[in-house]
Amino acid sequence: MKNILTFGEILVRLSSNQGKRLSEANTLHVNYGGAEANVAVSLAQYGYRTSIFSRIPDHEISKGILHYLKGYDVNTNLIQLKGTRIGTYYLEVGAGNRSSKVIYDRAHTSITELTPEDLDYETIFKDQELLHVTGITPALSDNLVQVTECLFKEAKARGILISFDFNYRAKLWSKETAGQVFKRLLSYVDICSCAELDFIHLLGYEQESERLSYPERLTTYYKKLSKEYDNIAVLFSTKRENLSASTNQLTGYFYTKGQLYESPLFSIDHIIDRVGGGDAFVSGVLHGYLSNWNEQNIIDFATAASVLKHTILGDANIVTEEEVNNMLNNGSQINR
Amino acid sequence: MKNILTFGEILVRLSSNQGKRLSEANTLHVNYGGAEANVAVSLAQYGYRTSIFSRIPDHEISKGILHYLKGYDVNTNLIQLKGTRIGTYYLEVGAGNRSSKVIYDRAHTSITELTPEDLDYETIFKDQELLHVTGITPALSDNLVQVTECLFKEAKARGILISFDFNYRAKLWSKETAGQVFKRLLSYVDICSCAELDFIHLLGYEQESERLSYPERLTTYYKKLSKEYDNIAVLFSTKRENLSASTNQLTGYFYTKGQLYESPLFSIDHIIDRVGGGDAFVSGVLHGYLSNWNEQNIIDFATAASVLKHTILGDANIVTEEEVNNMLNNGSQINR
Amino acid sequence: MKNILTFGEILVRLSSNQGKRLSEANTLHVNYGGAEANVAVSLAQYGYRTSIFSRIPDHEISKGILHYLKGYDVNTNLIQLKGTRIGTYYLEVGAGNRSSKVIYDRAHTSITELTPEDLDYETIFKDQELLHVTGITPALSDNLVQVTECLFKEAKARGILISFDFNYRAKLWSKETAGQVFKRLLSYVDICSCAELDFIHLLGYEQESERLSYPERLTTYYKKLSKEYDNIAVLFSTKRENLSASTNQLTGYFYTKGQLYESPLFSIDHIIDRVGGGDAFVSGVLHGYLSNWNEQNIIDFATAASVLKHTILGDANIVTEEEVNNMLNNGSQINR
Amino acid sequence: MKNILTFGEILVRLSSNQGKRLSEANTLHVNYGGAEANVAVSLAQYGYRTSIFSRIPDHEISKGILHYLKGYDVNTNLIQLKGTRIGTYYLEVGAGNRSSKVIYDRAHTSITELTPEDLDYETIFKDQELLHVTGITPALSDNLVQVTECLFKEAKARGILISFDFNYRAKLWSKETAGQVFKRLLSYVDICSCAELDFIHLLGYEQESERLSYPERLTTYYKKLSKEYDNIAVLFSTKRENLSASTNQLTGYFYTKGQLYESPLFSIDHIIDRVGGGDAFVSGVLHGYLSNWNEQNIIDFATAASVLKHTILGDANIVTEEEVNNMLNNGSQINR
Amino acid sequence: MKNILTFGEILVRLSSNQGKRLSEANTLHVNYGGAEANVAVSLAQYGYRTSIFSRIPDHEISKGILHYLKGYDVNTNLIQLKGTRIGTYYLEVGAGNRSSKVIYDRAHTSITELTPEDLDYETIFKDQELLHVTGITPALSDNLVQVTECLFKEAKARGILISFDFNYRAKLWSKETAGQVFKRLLSYVDICSCAELDFIHLLGYEQESERLSYPERLTTYYKKLSKEYDNIAVLFSTKRENLSASTNQLTGYFYTKGQLYESPLFSIDHIIDRVGGGDAFVSGVLHGYLSNWNEQNIIDFATAASVLKHTILGDANIVTEEEVNNMLNNGSQINR
Amino acid sequence: MKNILTFGEILVRLSSNQGKRLSEANTLHVNYGGAEANVAVSLAQYGYRTSIFSRIPDHEISKGILHYLKGYDVNTNLIQLKGTRIGTYYLEVGAGNRSSKVIYDRAHTSITELTPEDLDYETIFKDQELLHVTGITPALSDNLVQVTECLFKEAKARGILISFDFNYRAKLWSKETAGQVFKRLLSYVDICSCAELDFIHLLGYEQESERLSYPERLTTYYKKLSKEYDNIAVLFSTKRENLSASTNQLTGYFYTKGQLYESPLFSIDHIIDRVGGGDAFVSGVLHGYLSNWNEQNIIDFATAASVLKHTILGDANIVTEEEVNNMLNNGSQINR
Repeated sequence: MKNILTFGEILVRLSSNQGKRLSEANTLHVNYGGAEANVAVSLAQYGYRTSIFSRIPDHEISKGILHYLKGYDVNTNLIQLKGTRIGTYYLEVGAGNRSSKVIYDRAHTSITELTPEDLDYETIFKDQELLHVTGITPALSDNLVQVTECLFKEAKARGILISFDFNYRAKLWSKETAGQVFKRLLSYVDICSCAELDFIHLLGYEQESERLSYPERLTTYYKKLSKEYDNIAVLFSTKRENLSASTNQLTGYFYTKGQLYESPLFSIDHIIDRVGGGDAFVSGVLHGYLSNWNEQNIIDFATAASVLKHTILGDANIVTEEEVNNMLNNGSQINR
Repeated sequence: MKNILTFGEILVRLSSNQGKRLSEANTLHVNYGGAEANVAVSLAQYGYRTSIFSRIPDHEISKGILHYLKGYDVNTNLIQLKGTRIGTYYLEVGAGNRSSKVIYDRAHTSITELTPEDLDYETIFKDQELLHVTGITPALSDNLVQVTECLFKEAKARGILISFDFNYRAKLWSKETAGQVFKRLLSYVDICSCAELDFIHLLGYEQESERLSYPERLTTYYKKLSKEYDNIAVLFSTKRENLSASTNQLTGYFYTKGQLYESPLFSIDHIIDRVGGGDAFVSGVLHGYLSNWNEQNIIDFATAASVLKHTILGDANIVTEEEVNNMLNNGSQINR
Repeated sequence: MKNILTFGEILVRLSSNQGKRLSEANTLHVNYGGAEANVAVSLAQYGYRTSIFSRIPDHEISKGILHYLKGYDVNTNLIQLKGTRIGTYYLEVGAGNRSSKVIYDRAHTSITELTPEDLDYETIFKDQELLHVTGITPALSDNLVQVTECLFKEAKARGILISFDFNYRAKLWSKETAGQVFKRLLSYVDICSCAELDFIHLLGYEQESERLSYPERLTTYYKKLSKEYDNIAVLFSTKRENLSASTNQLTGYFYTKGQLYESPLFSIDHIIDRVGGGDAFVSGVLHGYLSNWNEQNIIDFATAASVLKHTILGDANIVTEEEVNNMLNNGSQINR
Repeated sequence: MKNILTFGEILVRLSSNQGKRLSEANTLHVNYGGAEANVAVSLAQYGYRTSIFSRIPDHEISKGILHYLKGYDVNTNLIQLKGTRIGTYYLEVGAGNRSSKVIYDRAHTSITELTPEDLDYETIFKDQELLHVTGITPALSDNLVQVTECLFKEAKARGILISFDFNYRAKLWSKETAGQVFKRLLSYVDICSCAELDFIHLLGYEQESERLSYPERLTTYYKKLSKEYDNIAVLFSTKRENLSASTNQLTGYFYTKGQLYESPLFSIDHIIDRVGGGDAFVSGVLHGYLSNWNEQNIIDFATAASVLKHTILGDANIVTEEEVNNMLNNGSQINR
Repeated sequence: MKNILTFGEILVRLSSNQGKRLSEANTLHVNYGGAEANVAVSLAQYGYRTSIFSRIPDHEISKGILHYLKGYDVNTNLIQLKGTRIGTYYLEVGAGNRSSKVIYDRAHTSITELTPEDLDYETIFKDQELLHVTGITPALSDNLVQVTECLFKEAKARGILISFDFNYRAKLWSKETAGQVFKRLLSYVDICSCAELDFIHLLGYEQESERLSYPERLTTYYKKLSKEYDNIAVLFSTKRENLSASTNQLTGYFYTKGQLYESPLFSIDHIIDRVGGGDAFVSGVLHGYLSNWNEQNIIDFATAASVLKHTILGDANIVTEEEVNNMLNNGSQINR
Repeated sequence: MKNILTFGEILVRLSSNQGKRLSEANTLHVNYGGAEANVAVSLAQYGYRTSIFSRIPDHEISKGILHYLKGYDVNTNLIQLKGTRIGTYYLEVGAGNRSSKVIYDRAHTSITELTPEDLDYETIFKDQELLHVTGITPALSDNLVQVTECLFKEAKARGILISFDFNYRAKLWSKETAGQVFKRLLSYVDICSCAELDFIHLLGYEQESERLSYPERLTTYYKKLSKEYDNIAVLFSTKRENLSASTNQLTGYFYTKGQLYESPLFSIDHIIDRVGGGDAFVSGVLHGYLSNWNEQNIIDFATAASVLKHTILGDANIVTEEEVNNMLNNGSQINR
């Protein structure tokens, strides 16, 4: 078993019932999310000792977050209770031909005020073996760009593996700024989640010819990046086909040592909640990678985990390894 | 921006949860509907100043109707608070292979007692540019046949456009009576929604050969009707394929000046609520027509609007023009 | 065990959550009620074979009524499925200083169309030993005045006991008409529920001096009525003190053979639903009377039964004899 | 109309909302089920006088069961109120790629303590014409194996038809024990529901070659069994294709006098609740068979009934014959 | 009828079910509030043409606010859609011995960024006759102190009545700052709500001797203030006795021209929601005052209105004048 | 900070909505309880490191228990996942004059199968300083009588404080057996909760004269017991007056070294949930005692904690020390 640290904002999510517009909702469901919290929860279900380094205000709503994380076996000792605002987002759950809609309310939150001076490396990194952060964290404030870099540097120095998920959010910052920051961060990264659009819009790569298949194009991008940053050991991402808000198709890709591995094509019908599907995928990859599974197993498991997430209301993938494997063996792949 | 008047009954709708039979429901959802109210609400979301001329009793349930209409920007000044019964309908929401079921409770309602004597044309038609009524209104009582005719006559005299949607309901009156009334009303109509079965069963047209495609047959009917009533400028309707109560396919048709325009074929999966889909379609056509869009844009937009309605619980299409266009551009058409 | 027949309308009740105005309710609770149905259900819980003679339309909502009545052991064989409207009422549940509010929607309902021609006495009265009707039934239509009289006459002729509860409702008819009808009906009645205001406003009695206590005044009224109608064997009623919509006090009175019996004063706090409290009281009296309990036991039990009803959401008093007695023995009487 | 008796455990079912794991559910829906109760309820909706012979404790939860069964016209006079435990099961409702999950809590329940000494045949079998039991009943305890055999023997002696549904549940007993018991029971059976896996795993038949189509293989099994037990007049089963927890395909098979009849292939999308689908099918077959319909009608109706069950939350198929036929005529068969 | 303008923040309120701590809530009720919005809504129910000047972001959540205000007849034309944050507060609804708890999340909201430059007096004050603001508005930001002063000055200049409610909130600013600002604002005020603690803690008055009764002490404070600011025509406040979170007692006081008027003592049991009770009181006073009622009527009506508010879930007092008067006449005063 | 161990069954609680009988409930609230779990949760909120030694089956429902306990900071490492049944109880929540009703379903549960052989004392008692058990645990099975004695003996030997709460439940065993077991257990106990009826019915004490006040009688009983078992350092209990299911009065008593300390009399109105009130009281006493508070503080705090519990839905007292003290200082004591 391994100790895993994530770093990022923990959010309160308020979502309407399916079929109700946010503007007419008279009750909202409360869940807790945030990309890094989702990964911490998912990995805890696979048996890891996960912690999240974060900051939230010291009040009743934060208590709900702590109950939730502890209840799902995430260590909360590194969460600082400080500041005044908790990150919040409103989710209008889509259905059929109406997409889901997200409204962020995460300006001026507690975590955005975190500075390098607040970092007690000894406490933060004690016993950790892997640090996972997504591109959302540095997007939240200039402070957090610095803090993320400091943490990456220090983790590297301590021989801790670094996992990074691009997770670019246009609502939070521009492509230019994101690209610059990501390029600096990439030099520390061992394990990396990014896809074609990230290469083109954030890293400035030229789009490969559309005559190439998607896997062929992806292989090219991954190869180039691996050459540029030889610290990156593995790269991965999913490709999603939106037939409607309720019906999707999903394929996962995992690249290492010059070779791309592709999962089966999964059909996802009757989607309950696709938020957190990406975090479930990353968690699956991390679990397979840290367990030294073979590459095909890793990508099959991770994609199946992501598929399963779509059936659960809430951000986190509350499933066990056994449940993912059951789905993988009895599930819904489409022949190609 | 244009001022639009609708005339019809405003209904309280009581619906069960999906998966529950009405006979075992212990809670019911309250929504407000009625074909003309739905059109008024939808057009208000597109930016029109809409009013509804109607009558409901003066009690707490009616207050809920007024709150609802005002909240969605429909002017309620022409709603008379009088009489004793409010129109009600119970909706058992279908799913999969079980169709939705409607039970009307709209006999002896306030609006059915409205007579031509109650019509203060100056007030009713002040600043109006279009009057929309559906075939449900005259179906409710003999009084309302008269009132509808009076309003059509007076509107015509004042140069107000008249929009009429057949909306034949077998639960309310016979095909014979409906056909007779509709024929009289048609001589005032500028904008008209009706489909193949209306021609055959209400207007007494002979069914065109099934060797003709549906668009070909529809074109024939529309042509004939346009010749008969040269006041009718545009005709339109949708064709729905019921794969199940949860999965439909929809195509829209718009006819003007001898030519039929066809929308893409939309696949509608995971239907939340198909009630009001027709009213959403009519509202879309009216918006496009009043905005002088080209014909293809009108029918594409209107059909997309109707599709979007299926994702929202309640009778009315609470969406903006921008949201319809987003769906149209990113949506779920099926290649033919 | 005895066979009991009631006659009256069965209603669908739609009530808002406590704290919500009807005009803003987006869900309503469905219950079934009607004074005579409530008595039938309560007596069935005490072990009687009860039936209700009534008429409702033949549709899904009526099915819910049948499921409910059968589930609580009321025989539904005498319910005719005919006509088009089901009686409905909306209940805004009060709380604290805001009273409950009722909106009736029971004009033109199926039962109002019932005529003496529809009465098949053999079937209706087969094996019955007591007929219970309230003043609401004849209030619903002229037809029902006639039907009630016919039933009373025929029941009398067959030696069936007749129980009548005044239950005057100002929303349904005038005091004058009610008084005239009630006077005619009283000549058949054996068991009668009425209180001071009924004597003054409906029967035209002069108000007794306020220097007399309430029990003294009531004794006087009851004596007079007993003299006038010597067929009436017992008379009874409750006196309610409304401290708020949530807190009441209740005393029961039972009169027979010249003597008035008074229950303890019950304090009722935290009222969940007071609708049907009177029907629960009548049911308690009928049970005690038919069981030949002594007078004090009858009135104590009946009042306790009514008190218990206030703790249950819905019109009917879903409690057993044992539960009423438990409350009576451990309950909440106030010393005077 | 015919009198039908079923024998089996009546269960309380506690199910989570779709999208919620049982481990995070804070409310659970209460329904009542049990294979034999489901058949009794479904047949009562088709107009039969059904009873269930069972045992449950004498407390408030059992009262709910009695209200439910009576409300849906099932006679409860043969239900003994005795013992201490009520059978319970928790249902995690699946969706999309996550299957439903059932947790039984039915050890030591009241019915398991029933012994042959408790059987008063005169009362139990009075006026009955058919006895239906499933393989779940003898699976619950050794006592119940005996009781089932006694009832079968006695029913046979009285000329009552015996219907048996294998319904093998691995959570309750081993294949070996089940097989032995079923073989003994089969010698009494007239009407029997079992499918390919039952033949192979319980009756020890060899699997027919996969080169044969499923209907061909099934015909072979059915023929053999009919030869072995010439008391069995009809055999039937369904074949289900699980595309996901929300989308299935279903075909029904009915065998009699050497010939197999096959229903259309039904597509079932948007599944609300598939529990009880098998009981709905059996009920449909029994109805058709007892009504002397032709074989194709029987299997079409029964399969359509089962399909319709998937749209209703709860174990029982609360639909009328008319509703099944409507679905059959307008429904969702797939061309093959 | 009069035109009334209020100025202040409009809040989204998220509240837990009674009996649930916020930290364990999985659903929250959505209501909309804010002291000035509450007054605007209440006065609109009394028949005034009310507007609110405010600023909220341009997104789906704000749409809900607009639907709500329009639905209850508040003009929203002066609400600017700008900025990024909407004011939010979480309410843990108390019960019995546990008080309600409020968590504000209203830093950096749209309205706090409003500056005097944003004020278009012509538009804002067009046709207005009274401006109502509470001490919460200037508490939200330094900008809003300035804006409030500018509006008061300009209103004064235009002969518009100014109503001010101290509404001091310790969670928003210190007593010192509030006191300084309030003193400046008071010189414009005509109608003023403040109570004993405001005099002592904000205005620096010495506490009057406790040997004086509360009305005597209040009279002294009011007299002094009236002397200091002779522009203030009327002063008023309530005195609340908290017997528990569910049971309170309330008295209202109204002072003008040297004399104090006292309402009956109201007992408030079974409190549903006491938030907004003060705003309901102020609205009642404003209505009485603008209607030129006599002083005793004003204070009785206003206090009764406040009492009624406690029975309604949500911030605003959704009641008519008639309903308040009914309560006043049939209600729950306690004899002293 | 101290380490505290409790030992007992953890239960799933299923409760109806207030106003709903269990027999008509269609949804049930899920909470988790059990006297010892409640104490563990409450003490964890006061800052203790608490653990519970227990056994539950290894399935999804147990997962919910683990999430809950971990979320509220109770260590679950000593919970064995074994056996087949989870203890369950149904709660019909009372209101006003209708008491709450509990139906246990806890026969044959996992914990009842625990034997002395399963006890690994080293693991169980590692670092523990106090062991708390109630009389419910030995009531569940003969095994558990033995296990409790073994644990008490071993704890004593290790110098661990032993806290015992009589908690006699007539539904689980007879007074005689309970009395015998309790007498044996008492010889190990340091801290003990028991009240007058326990002395009379379980320990066989003679009832003290009713001319003595309750505190006087209690002092006598406590003195006698302290003489008999000089190991008992402190004794305590509450006295509850049931005015109704919604309104109670509560006084706490704490006895040590020959002297009885009495809390104020607390009025409890608007009771949400009184289950767990006793466990909240014991937790309060344990906290005060372990913190070396003075006796009056201990009993005031503990009683206030119990009062606060009545305002929270669910078994456990989810409040902090600060919240109890706030209530104590601002709360609802009644003058005597």
